[in-house]
Amino acid sequence: KLRFDPREHQHLRYNPLRDSWVLVSAHRMKRPWKGQVEKPPEENIPRHDPNNPLCPLSTRANGEVNPEYDSTFLFDNDFPALQPDAPDPGKSSRFYCSNKVMCFHPWSDITLPLMQPGEIRKVIDKWAELIEELGSTYPWVQIFENRGAMMGCSNPHPHCQIWASSFLPNEPALAERCQREYLRKHGEAMLLRYARMEAQAQERVVVENEHWLVVVPYWATWPFQTLLLPRRHVLRFPDLTSQERDSLASIMKRLLTKYDNLFEVSFPYSMGWHGAPTGTHLEEDMNHWQLHAHYYPPLLRSATVRKFMVGYEMLAQEQRDLTPEQVSPAAAEPLNTPILKENN
Amino acid sequence: KLRFDPREHQHLRYNPLRDSWVLVSAHRMKRPWKGQVEKPPEENIPRHDPNNPLCPLSTRANGEVNPEYDSTFLFDNDFPALQPDAPDPGKSSRFYCSNKVMCFHPWSDITLPLMQPGEIRKVIDKWAELIEELGSTYPWVQIFENRGAMMGCSNPHPHCQIWASSFLPNEPALAERCQREYLRKHGEAMLLRYARMEAQAQERVVVENEHWLVVVPYWATWPFQTLLLPRRHVLRFPDLTSQERDSLASIMKRLLTKYDNLFEVSFPYSMGWHGAPTGTHLEEDMNHWQLHAHYYPPLLRSATVRKFMVGYEMLAQEQRDLTPEQVSPAAAEPLNTPILKENN
Ligand SMILES: O=P(O)(O)O[C@H]1O[C@H](CO)[C@@H](O)[C@H](O)[C@H]1O
Ligand SMILES: O=P(O)(O)O[C@H]1O[C@H](CO)[C@@H](O)[C@H](O)[C@H]1O
Repeated sequence: KLRFDPREHQHLRYNPLRDSWVLVSAHRMKRPWKGQVEKPPEENIPRHDPNNPLCPLSTRANGEVNPEYDSTFLFDNDFPALQPDAPDPGKSSRFYCSNKVMCFHPWSDITLPLMQPGEIRKVIDKWAELIEELGSTYPWVQIFENRGAMMGCSNPHPHCQIWASSFLPNEPALAERCQREYLRKHGEAMLLRYARMEAQAQERVVVENEHWLVVVPYWATWPFQTLLLPRRHVLRFPDLTSQERDSLASIMKRLLTKYDNLFEVSFPYSMGWHGAPTGTHLEEDMNHWQLHAHYYPPLLRSATVRKFMVGYEMLAQEQRDLTPEQVSPAAAEPLNTPILKENN
Repeated sequence: KLRFDPREHQHLRYNPLRDSWVLVSAHRMKRPWKGQVEKPPEENIPRHDPNNPLCPLSTRANGEVNPEYDSTFLFDNDFPALQPDAPDPGKSSRFYCSNKVMCFHPWSDITLPLMQPGEIRKVIDKWAELIEELGSTYPWVQIFENRGAMMGCSNPHPHCQIWASSFLPNEPALAERCQREYLRKHGEAMLLRYARMEAQAQERVVVENEHWLVVVPYWATWPFQTLLLPRRHVLRFPDLTSQERDSLASIMKRLLTKYDNLFEVSFPYSMGWHGAPTGTHLEEDMNHWQLHAHYYPPLLRSATVRKFMVGYEMLAQEQRDLTPEQVSPAAAEPLNTPILKENN
């Protein structure tokens, strides 16, 4: 009788943060690919382009001129999805919000992994400040970065966005419910326990240091998806100590360098931070929460062949074509799939 | 004081089929687009390509030779995501399944909207047969079509897939829970009531006939997403009468022609059918269900500019850039957005 091999045989995995299942069909990497091939990321980005509205000294859509900034630079989104002053639609569909853009660096031809740890630390401090500030009134402050044209980013200048809202969006609401339920049942914060288990098993760890752990989570849906977790119980981003922030700058640089090395290309992804809700929730017991960041990269086989989350995924259930263990560096190189490699 | 205008002002909409919210930021269509531009769909597909494994008389990956079929043609997927004979991983991650591909027509250069109603009817009858047959043992039979390279389709020959599984996948499980709850609370099947409301309001109707209604649902997340509903209470696909099937062939042809006319391009989408679960559920009371099909097209502004569901959408909440009413043909032409036009 054939023995079960997760790299060869289909199975289901449970995602405890979303209370949903992932279909793992590892053997699917064997099928030939004759479908869409993407353009590789642009390589010759000028360091300074006076027509790029995110560069120092450029004029933006609203007529404002950017300062000659030399570190991070923050401003209100000129085409916000969330309007702070929209009229009241009445009933449950009403909300208020804030929309900001933050440049990481004055140069357009740099990305987080190429920045100095000290420069990344400045980004981290700004993130903490923003969550502190906006979180004093808003229950949810979403920091996210879309990197690369493949992830809908329309400006190559390194930047992230901060959308704060008076409602708890779907995804954090789900994470809130799942983590709350877990603590109630098991007496421990879910992701704290999960990080400990992963650190011990070393099966899905991508990089780690004294304060942080990055894993391809057991339930990852995107081929090279990762989860970045502190080892200590931390509810919210501003709670990070100075040491933990330096350590975060270092682990982000290592993770993103691995990503870039994987297919030797500036690796596209969407990433963002989830921590305990803020606003009035600051007064509540939120010990079921553990701060974490999700990285969702679209690529599957190479710099130009992505994973399509389409028909079956949209209508039935997410499905991945290789196991999370196969993409972590500990794995032997299976199916000619490049593993996440480090080089710095 | 400014009056609320859904086409100008942000608001939230509730999706009762998924128990989640959509952020509508209609004004976002005004922002300039400097991001990724897609290749338009291939135009010169040969009618018959002996190297295409889906064509009549071609040899497939497993060595089998296709018959000289002249209508639909069904076979087991040569690179299945679901293996019928995989060993048992034990515990809750075990399942069994079936994976089929169905060609719609012997020609590679044809699509559903270009086929004759009689030919579409044959596809419909085959769908009914498959749900009947596989549904006798499997609780869920997912019929889906990925059309266009932008939707991960790697073969231009017109075809769909049928994946049957021994588990109820996430999306149908959610639809099951939401519809069951609605009937319990309101004493009527949710989508039956919804179809009646939409037919009366005529605000979001795209096409309709005696037996069917197509709307851009109030909670649509994809710009040109539609929901296809029977007017009569129908639990499952095989329950459709002969008249309803002819009528379905006609409305599918009209809907897909509108899609193709919108940007004058073979319109990409993923679509699929959801009906009451089968297998052992055939014996249960499933009156809360109403058969329906979802169409999820990726395009936003033109044949080459798509909607990116990225950072905020992946990490927080889905967000759309124009209202569902703005894309239905009843709407005046707003923001230079083409409306769904009909022409047949
Ligand atoms: O089955 P295909 O056409 O080879 O593959 C396509 O549809 C599948 C089911 O939605 C997806 O998992 C794949 O990413 C996509 O490329
Ligand atoms: O805000 P941007 O960069 O203009 O737009 C990008 O991110 C948004 C938030 O995830 C998405 O809604 C858009 O589809 C995407 O193109």
